[in-house]
Amino acid sequence: MHGERILMGPGPSNPYPEVVAALTRPVLGHLDPEFLAVLEHTSSQLRTAFRTDNQLTFPLSGTGSAGMEAAMTNLVGPGDVVVVGVNGLFGERLCEMAGRLGAEVVRVEAPWGEPLDPQAVVSAHPSPTVIALVHAETSTGVRNDVAEVGAAKGDALFVVDTVTSLGGIEVAVDDWHVDLSYSGTQKCLGVPPGLSPITVSPLARERLVRRPTSWYLDLGLISAYVSGGSGRTYHHTAPISMIYALEAGLGVLLEEGLEASWARHRACGELLQDGLEALGLRLVPPAGHRLPQLTTVWVPELPRGMTEADVRAQLLSDYGIEIGAGVGPMAGRVWRIGCMGHTARRRNVELLLSALASILGHRRLGGSS
Amino acid sequence: MHGERILMGPGPSNPYPEVVAALTRPVLGHLDPEFLAVLEHTSSQLRTAFRTDNQLTFPLSGTGSAGMEAAMTNLVGPGDVVVVGVNGLFGERLCEMAGRLGAEVVRVEAPWGEPLDPQAVVSAHPSPTVIALVHAETSTGVRNDVAEVGAAKGDALFVVDTVTSLGGIEVAVDDWHVDLSYSGTQKCLGVPPGLSPITVSPLARERLVRRPTSWYLDLGLISAYVSGGSGRTYHHTAPISMIYALEAGLGVLLEEGLEASWARHRACGELLQDGLEALGLRLVPPAGHRLPQLTTVWVPELPRGMTEADVRAQLLSDYGIEIGAGVGPMAGRVWRIGCMGHTARRRNVELLLSALASILGHRRLGGSS
Repeated sequence: MHGERILMGPGPSNPYPEVVAALTRPVLGHLDPEFLAVLEHTSSQLRTAFRTDNQLTFPLSGTGSAGMEAAMTNLVGPGDVVVVGVNGLFGERLCEMAGRLGAEVVRVEAPWGEPLDPQAVVSAHPSPTVIALVHAETSTGVRNDVAEVGAAKGDALFVVDTVTSLGGIEVAVDDWHVDLSYSGTQKCLGVPPGLSPITVSPLARERLVRRPTSWYLDLGLISAYVSGGSGRTYHHTAPISMIYALEAGLGVLLEEGLEASWARHRACGELLQDGLEALGLRLVPPAGHRLPQLTTVWVPELPRGMTEADVRAQLLSDYGIEIGAGVGPMAGRVWRIGCMGHTARRRNVELLLSALASILGHRRLGGSS
Repeated sequence: MHGERILMGPGPSNPYPEVVAALTRPVLGHLDPEFLAVLEHTSSQLRTAFRTDNQLTFPLSGTGSAGMEAAMTNLVGPGDVVVVGVNGLFGERLCEMAGRLGAEVVRVEAPWGEPLDPQAVVSAHPSPTVIALVHAETSTGVRNDVAEVGAAKGDALFVVDTVTSLGGIEVAVDDWHVDLSYSGTQKCLGVPPGLSPITVSPLARERLVRRPTSWYLDLGLISAYVSGGSGRTYHHTAPISMIYALEAGLGVLLEEGLEASWARHRACGELLQDGLEALGLRLVPPAGHRLPQLTTVWVPELPRGMTEADVRAQLLSDYGIEIGAGVGPMAGRVWRIGCMGHTARRRNVELLLSALASILGHRRLGGSS
């Protein structure tokens, strides 16, 4: 048996205890009336979390990247124009997926670590089929402005990646005119990785690609199972136990309340970010666009020829704390520190700050130590 | 909280207790050295279960149908000739997936409930890119002959669906010259649904489509994570808890021994099939091609205007037993009774036979009641 971790990387986060318990619930068949009630309840909880009335809202049977691929394969065909906001790895991934499907990809870039300009996104093309961007860029810790793009999206379908935002900061699918959003379970929902909550507007449903290259992610076919009512038909076998886990995680979230969960994530993020600055570290994103649930910080000058990987390894071995490395152009230059879901607790932040201070040879300034 | 079931449908089966326990193990990050050790152990166990030396063998992050789609999207492009053996729903699904990718699909059919003719499959086209068939047709309970096709596959890549066979009857990927096989966790492996074990031969790896339309299922990219060694790179977040569950399920399987597991499935299947015939019911597949782990039986004449759905509903409500309905042309005409993984126990078979005899108004012939 392996160790226990405080998961403060970019995800997975620690699951809520209620979620762990739910994983052990007796397995039901995917057509069992009692399981279908669980699935409908989970979908209803997801509507609340996404702040949407979209009928087609459900947990997709894959991780967040499967949600991204479902968005592209169902909405985009050869020659379609897709405007993508790119200021990190997941914006790049959207371009890659759209490109593989034969779309004409119009990139609207901002430097990694900076937010996108919403005006540049909406004015990049006169009549795109799809405008897509990432709400919370997991690679940089930047929050992109979604509402401003949604308000001016025009006739395009608006796709928003909420993998790292849902449950941690405000997400308002209907108010923001989002047509398709996908998330992940292993971030601010406090559930292990494996599912991608997804919601699809009536407009997006009208415009679904008729026979997407992907059968597994074909939303038209899946909708006949997840929201088929009495005419429900089998598509693929639903991942039963993980759906129990998601139901339980959403139960924790909605019992706490969305606003209270956002406030808890914000309080932890501020404590962490203030503490890192007090240690003399510099945060990557500009104020106003920092995610509370995922903090990126420049790797400081390190003592005694230590590498940044040594710091992470020591956190893991001596404290059981995982933090994340940088990726892409930020590899080796930043750390990514998550505070998401059940991990978003003051005690975890305090411990990390103390541990980091100790490893970096600082006497901790501020905080409780 | 919902009820407990004896899952005797076409899957999911009941998970082994060790599997349920494993789901609660502490979540690790997908790049944590201790998790990577779990992943490598699981891959090694899968090589034993598949009877292969294929280095690229791992749990894909989706259900069995994702495995099927991974096979097609990575091996088949527009204009490629794909010979598909079709004698049930999952053969049809292979055709559908290949067709969506622009392949020229050559169908080799047998009636639902009958096995494929291996000779017809291998002689259907002089130089196919891929020959694909389903080993254990979950829709009909028929076992198709795989070894005979593999021995004569020529230069084609040979794809075999082992979703319902792996762990329940002999599967020998290397001996049978299989180039890519995918399975599912929720059948004879006794693990909840959610992952698709997959194995890819060196020849298939040489011929992978360079940039498949699916990014999520791109085996070239995934292999850099699952078998990247020290150069391992992140692709998507692995479904940690489900991989723990699979590791535990494979542990149970390999501790019992493959041959012993096949023998247990065979003994249960024979007990069930003999018992059904003793009740006067007729089995669908011909002798010699009946799956022990999944039995299809024609719905008999029913008492008092009862429908076949009433029988299934009564089994569920009065006995907590799930059995499966027919699909496609067999909808309403057959039952599908699984005896897979942890469910494959003599006591479950005896209980089902007694329950069925009682519901059908028979006095049970033979058996222990």
